[in-house]
Amino acid sequence: MDIQEFVHRSIGSWKSQRSVHHLAFGHFEAVTSTIQIEDLAIDEPAVLALCESNKISPSSIAAPFRMSWRAESDWDDNVNQGSSIFVPVPNSDRTGQLLREIGYAEEAPAVANYSFTDDQTFVLLTPYDRASAEEKIWFVSPTLRCRVALIKTSAGTGALTASFSSEIKLTESS
Amino acid sequence: MDIQEFVHRSIGSWKSQRSVHHLAFGHFEAVTSTIQIEDLAIDEPAVLALCESNKISPSSIAAPFRMSWRAESDWDDNVNQGSSIFVPVPNSDRTGQLLREIGYAEEAPAVANYSFTDDQTFVLLTPYDRASAEEKIWFVSPTLRCRVALIKTSAGTGALTASFSSEIKLTESS
Repeated sequence: MDIQEFVHRSIGSWKSQRSVHHLAFGHFEAVTSTIQIEDLAIDEPAVLALCESNKISPSSIAAPFRMSWRAESDWDDNVNQGSSIFVPVPNSDRTGQLLREIGYAEEAPAVANYSFTDDQTFVLLTPYDRASAEEKIWFVSPTLRCRVALIKTSAGTGALTASFSSEIKLTESS
Repeated sequence: MDIQEFVHRSIGSWKSQRSVHHLAFGHFEAVTSTIQIEDLAIDEPAVLALCESNKISPSSIAAPFRMSWRAESDWDDNVNQGSSIFVPVPNSDRTGQLLREIGYAEEAPAVANYSFTDDQTFVLLTPYDRASAEEKIWFVSPTLRCRVALIKTSAGTGALTASFSSEIKLTESS
């Protein structure tokens, strides 16, 4: 598994069930969402702009993609939706950086480090100003993807939330 | 990480939040439980009996333990509780079998195969008569353990439920 193969398998529309465990209080939150992942050309203006703002040469990137989501939580009536561009910058078959426009824990650009384990799990570590995110994503089958995300304080002393998504593929995108 | 180290880190009392995703219908179930894991002597009568019923020599086992649980689901008012003995039978530092008295998906004895990945995740595959379970368990810190379990039909064509547990250590057991 490398980043090209991982992104290729991820392209399409997914129906996601996400459970968030708020660890300090033992609360559960249930989120239902649809996620769309589409590949982008390397010379897409938004991709080039993200490269430039990170001082990365477009010749060193691979498999840029856009992820869009629309989510409903059982905690409130609001619909949360948005989209972000992601640009992988491999430095080996199994490791690299992932540039993204918008981070999960804070609404600011973020650079994450990724790696693949020997059982083909994609591991993503993202530092933010006041927190860090540790994600594991793997394919159970071509149509079922699992994702575990832990949000930790920046001191790294404890996890604040642990969340789990099961994502079922709805359609193949061409 | 080997099985002795993994069991050693697991010994103690844990408060668990578990979310079950029933994939076909998109339903969420929330389960709160306490789990106790205690180590057992290799010559404990119940351990020797489990070895004998599986035709395994007690000289080839390592780090047997008992797991007890008491769980409450938001789906009904019943408390589910029980306990089971687990006996690892390593065949290398990173792989082996795990004997258990009671399986998760069916109430019958089960033999599972385990392995550790290069990022120290314990992976457990359990075949049952009509289903199979695929579990990943890893320590985020000494006091936070995550567990993802997938229950699949025996034909292996699809996952029926995906569940995620975040387990916080309450006390150290001596």
